[in-house]
Amino acid sequence: MTDFIDIPARVGAVLTVDLDALAANWRHLDRLSGPAECAAVVKADAYGVGLEEAAPALAAAGARTFFVALPEEGIRLRHLLPHARIGILDGLFPAAESDYRAHDLIPVLNDLDEIARWSTAARSAGRPLPAFVHLDTGMNRLGLGSADRTVLAAEPERLDGIEIAAFMSHFACADEPDHPMTAAQTATFLRALNYLPPGPASLANSSGIFRGQETHFDMVRPGAALYGVNPTPETDNPMQPVVRVDARILSVRTVDSPETVGYGATHQVMGQARIATIAAGYADGLIRAMGNAGAVTIDGSACRIVGHVSMDLITVDVSHLAEEAVQPGDAAQLIGPDMPVDMVAAAADTIGYEILTALGRRYARRHVGGDAAVAPARHSPGRGAVA
Amino acid sequence: MTDFIDIPARVGAVLTVDLDALAANWRHLDRLSGPAECAAVVKADAYGVGLEEAAPALAAAGARTFFVALPEEGIRLRHLLPHARIGILDGLFPAAESDYRAHDLIPVLNDLDEIARWSTAARSAGRPLPAFVHLDTGMNRLGLGSADRTVLAAEPERLDGIEIAAFMSHFACADEPDHPMTAAQTATFLRALNYLPPGPASLANSSGIFRGQETHFDMVRPGAALYGVNPTPETDNPMQPVVRVDARILSVRTVDSPETVGYGATHQVMGQARIATIAAGYADGLIRAMGNAGAVTIDGSACRIVGHVSMDLITVDVSHLAEEAVQPGDAAQLIGPDMPVDMVAAAADTIGYEILTALGRRYARRHVGGDAAVAPARHSPGRGAVA
Repeated sequence: MTDFIDIPARVGAVLTVDLDALAANWRHLDRLSGPAECAAVVKADAYGVGLEEAAPALAAAGARTFFVALPEEGIRLRHLLPHARIGILDGLFPAAESDYRAHDLIPVLNDLDEIARWSTAARSAGRPLPAFVHLDTGMNRLGLGSADRTVLAAEPERLDGIEIAAFMSHFACADEPDHPMTAAQTATFLRALNYLPPGPASLANSSGIFRGQETHFDMVRPGAALYGVNPTPETDNPMQPVVRVDARILSVRTVDSPETVGYGATHQVMGQARIATIAAGYADGLIRAMGNAGAVTIDGSACRIVGHVSMDLITVDVSHLAEEAVQPGDAAQLIGPDMPVDMVAAAADTIGYEILTALGRRYARRHVGGDAAVAPARHSPGRGAVA
Repeated sequence: MTDFIDIPARVGAVLTVDLDALAANWRHLDRLSGPAECAAVVKADAYGVGLEEAAPALAAAGARTFFVALPEEGIRLRHLLPHARIGILDGLFPAAESDYRAHDLIPVLNDLDEIARWSTAARSAGRPLPAFVHLDTGMNRLGLGSADRTVLAAEPERLDGIEIAAFMSHFACADEPDHPMTAAQTATFLRALNYLPPGPASLANSSGIFRGQETHFDMVRPGAALYGVNPTPETDNPMQPVVRVDARILSVRTVDSPETVGYGATHQVMGQARIATIAAGYADGLIRAMGNAGAVTIDGSACRIVGHVSMDLITVDVSHLAEEAVQPGDAAQLIGPDMPVDMVAAAADTIGYEILTALGRRYARRHVGGDAAVAPARHSPGRGAVA
């Protein structure tokens, strides 16, 4: 990723997405997964980085199976990737069976009613229809619970016409190493596979891939790690950063005690301070909980956010930097190599996933790289065009 | 706003924006402002509700002056409203003077350098150019501080060629009644007006309008109150709700102790509970801090959010509702008449502004009303089309 970001004259901030890093992250996870297929989760506009650019880059890197949450997202993805396998995690929506069939979407069947409706759809189609079957092993969110699984084992004909793409389940606590729930969920999943009809299996999410080969089964389903979120928070991030946000410095002012900064007068200046105001706020996804907690970097130096985050602005303390190093028109790095998404999340008492999906619509978006995934030899690291 | 929302087959949730309520809110604030002009702040995609629909509805209601943060937003607004006055709050960006002139954007000049550049632009245009001049009275974010104001008073020729649309300032604490900072800022503003060249003045934001006529001056600049956020948090909301979010119930399951719900196993079920899983999450702007804190309503009854908010899903406790009252395919109200945006914000330990601007891109968006603002007699309350 280039070091220097030139912010176009009419915008406040630039969101850069590194498609080469995205592809490299997928390849790294694919290698780690050994013989298991490595799918790619691209729901929520590819975790906020942009489905239109991310999905083709992941496909070029080698991903063949993709997951989204909603049928509407699946249809958008189908236009981008005519030949991919597309799974719909939220299940088979009532009265939408024909949409799934028309766009070749594979529902993740979450209960017996969804199984019955898809079996009926297969009968009326006159051919088998593929589906994932979700087994709930402890999230208590979606998927067949143990009572449903017992029924299904006793009456396997409920699956008539359904071609099992995989039985799958989802970890609740895989981001914590050695959390007992991960082993318990794996054991429950294995027991269920033993008494259900045969079929491929899929369990590990991003963190799960790092928690031992016994969770890899036939397919792993990374999401957050693809986009640079650390799947192993207890240690260094094995993934490359994908997202970078740089914003324009609008003003630098000297503030003296007993003055305060921002809404609610929550930051009390101690002695003289220099405060820079930067053109991005919670409307751009810099969530408000970062107020008086987060930081940005200017020229590689960390600068604390002081006062509340405003809708369109943040204020940071630049007292420790030379005056000539911080001028209106310069850029501050809000997320990027110097300010990892997980660190931003920690300051806001949340997780990197939320930071990514909250990224707003107001940025100038640049996508760099991407061609490398198709033809590495042709790649040059030039700047992408600003959208 | 209609009571019953039908969620289209392929989507998880519907965002409804009531353009009649938006117009009524502007008219209410306009009446309260007496002879002062009532502008409309529409930055950040009209606080998340959609600039393309909101701006024309506000113009039809009578608003003539609009404010956005960035020149890029101003250009987008100019295409919608060819004749409106458009102020750019973030100031006069370097090297963007020609963009402001080409699209007839009025910069809010925030320092002496911006004043100098706009005065130069006027000289080269050979005609006066309008500008707001922002006086910082305590936010320490943007605007001329007292030293800059002294220079400007001593050297008024710095404003040559600039037609003062208004001197303005911005309140830090107007949402708290009788906060001493509001009176202090008003006094500072008045003192500055006394020694600066003559010109119209503008101070009150949404809350300021309710804090006494002495802050109204020549123009008020409401934002949040237009969109239904309570400008007087200490008492009942005088504004009409503008935004409503309804989401699809995907599943309802019985969970028994000692099971847990969701990521991190943060919700421990006490005895038997029925849990409904709903198709919206933090990627849709239901910020993650609502986990184990917020609530939704189903059929008018509040249901607590249990467990963490997931990216695409929330889980709520529906144990107290009859089984037939909560079925997959039904809708839950996440924001709306039964679940005001300020209540959602309080559960997430933030403000209604952030809830609105965080509303994601994945909703089916419906805009209802709007024609009433143009021709009240023709208005019928029919459903808008789903985008």
